[in-house]
Amino acid sequence: MVHPHRNYNFSAGPATLPLSVLQKAQEQLLSYGETGASVMEISHRSQTFLDILDSARTRLRSLLAIPKNYQILFLQGGARLQFSMIPMNLLESSDELADYVITGSWSQKAHQEALKEATPNVVWDGATHDYDRLPQWDQLAFNPSSRYAYIVSNETIQGVQYQSCPSTAPLPLVCDASSDLLYRPLHLEQYGLLYACAQKNLGPAGVTVVIIRDDLLERSPDRLPGYLNYRLHAEQNSLYNTPPTFAIYLLDLVCQSIQETHGNLDSLHQLNQEKADLLYQILDDHPDFYTGHAQSDSRSLMNVTFQVPSENLLDRFVQEATEAGLANLKGHRSVGGVRASIYNAMPLDGVKALAEFMIDFKNRNA
Amino acid sequence: MVHPHRNYNFSAGPATLPLSVLQKAQEQLLSYGETGASVMEISHRSQTFLDILDSARTRLRSLLAIPKNYQILFLQGGARLQFSMIPMNLLESSDELADYVITGSWSQKAHQEALKEATPNVVWDGATHDYDRLPQWDQLAFNPSSRYAYIVSNETIQGVQYQSCPSTAPLPLVCDASSDLLYRPLHLEQYGLLYACAQKNLGPAGVTVVIIRDDLLERSPDRLPGYLNYRLHAEQNSLYNTPPTFAIYLLDLVCQSIQETHGNLDSLHQLNQEKADLLYQILDDHPDFYTGHAQSDSRSLMNVTFQVPSENLLDRFVQEATEAGLANLKGHRSVGGVRASIYNAMPLDGVKALAEFMIDFKNRNA
Repeated sequence: MVHPHRNYNFSAGPATLPLSVLQKAQEQLLSYGETGASVMEISHRSQTFLDILDSARTRLRSLLAIPKNYQILFLQGGARLQFSMIPMNLLESSDELADYVITGSWSQKAHQEALKEATPNVVWDGATHDYDRLPQWDQLAFNPSSRYAYIVSNETIQGVQYQSCPSTAPLPLVCDASSDLLYRPLHLEQYGLLYACAQKNLGPAGVTVVIIRDDLLERSPDRLPGYLNYRLHAEQNSLYNTPPTFAIYLLDLVCQSIQETHGNLDSLHQLNQEKADLLYQILDDHPDFYTGHAQSDSRSLMNVTFQVPSENLLDRFVQEATEAGLANLKGHRSVGGVRASIYNAMPLDGVKALAEFMIDFKNRNA
Repeated sequence: MVHPHRNYNFSAGPATLPLSVLQKAQEQLLSYGETGASVMEISHRSQTFLDILDSARTRLRSLLAIPKNYQILFLQGGARLQFSMIPMNLLESSDELADYVITGSWSQKAHQEALKEATPNVVWDGATHDYDRLPQWDQLAFNPSSRYAYIVSNETIQGVQYQSCPSTAPLPLVCDASSDLLYRPLHLEQYGLLYACAQKNLGPAGVTVVIIRDDLLERSPDRLPGYLNYRLHAEQNSLYNTPPTFAIYLLDLVCQSIQETHGNLDSLHQLNQEKADLLYQILDDHPDFYTGHAQSDSRSLMNVTFQVPSENLLDRFVQEATEAGLANLKGHRSVGGVRASIYNAMPLDGVKALAEFMIDFKNRNA
């Protein structure tokens, strides 16, 4: 059952966090352990914070089975800064090539920023299908001389997501996993760099996790602005400057909550599948009323996007849902419709409540 | 009196926050207002968060009397990213000049980063005096063709601070006020750009406030990486990407607490002067035991730095102070000694307790 003062919050991000994490943060907000101060009031170089940083890294490494030859960095600036840092660090000159797979709004934006640094090569673009599907992985023609291939694992706005890890990767894959990291196990070995701004599955806005393979760290040119140099952050244990300490602390608590509640990402994946199936089943059962955006082989387990028959009904849907304690269901302003974001921290009961509401709403308005 | 679970925390940053701010954040952590969600769980584009953003900006504008032709941006990446963004935005080519006044560790680092973007001109360097003093403002020979003059208002590590606002500014002043913004009123008109990473007087680590004059915004070249372009952030109300929402919320609470507790920055300045005087008086009264680092005309009201007669006594000082509930007094690893950071949120009682401890410690060990 939902907490008496809380809604089921379907916000696409910043998104709902596990209640137990917020409760622990609340309890420790005036004084953390024996420090006599909040986590946000202590030095990032204090042993207390170093332990938190180490714990966050260790939990991420364990949950995602991150191999030893990958470093975990905690940065700031969100995905937007990564759009630039990636080509700035991984291309040694603007003549070097990079491949981009354009599957929705976020890969579009990443490609636009890459254009400022080099001449990225678009190997696939879903624009003609209004970004309702993903490419067949084995049909992508990567350029063998490219230095990396850029993908977005889940497009939050369109609600399309790769159903499985890429099976082959002729180039180092660079993946924006901002909206789905930790939703299931990954084969990290396929990736050169994988990053996520934290405000979906990982924690609050303000921290960006970058997981990068050691050999790619060598590429960072010395001429880069210090803050934009991955190698400097790696060499300095993410303490090149003051990191967003409170956000990292919350990320650690989120990882701890996953470990304690689900054990591992396999069982969490199963739950996420179950949650998404509940909603997609309704779209499939009532195609005259609910129109899903994503093709069925590209459906996201994180963001379920669909239209209702009219703008009037959309307004009513969102308003009545809000009154029923199902908050923040309005789709992104660029595509409209409904978007139900059901990240890791959305409990099954919340999705069940939404499913019941959807059937009831359809019965009353069809 | 100090809260039963909290120490007097003299950390240089991240630093102590007002207890009332933490208590309010604690109370609202599971559900903010009528939202049924934490501030960190709601969209940065929701009306609820837009109101918080607007409130933070309005309070800063009121406290600092920021003229209308200045914009207030909330960014990420800390001072380190500003070291690069400033020359990248304010110099239209690497041939353009900028003047740097080197007064301690932070201006040194800013100058080093500027070297990657242009050929900055050092107009003064306190290295020969071990950064124990500041220049006479009217003796600085700025280069009239420089595009800006860079200063650090308070050097946190050395504990030196300009005693008053610069009276004249032949060039647009660019000021790193990371460790003293809001400690006293400012004459903003003298500045072109003034910034502060927040983890001293303003809030937690993870948000950087940039106050920039409209005409300087025009300089940002379109070729810059999007996240590094001041103009884009200004045009998009600091919502170019997801800002660090929880840190901005805390910054708003800190500003509210200043308004409610002190009314304005004049009375807060008076209190800060009173706090610092208590400690500097002890240094002046016991020069054989306590050796202040800063020359008396350059003393910081934020960071009081001094040596005790031996490394042994230093260890004992820090340890006994900690046991007495006076935490985090060890000086920065690069200069040693003691550093008492007494930012806005350090209550007078905390400084009195430290003063008493210092006299007692001296009496027992002289």
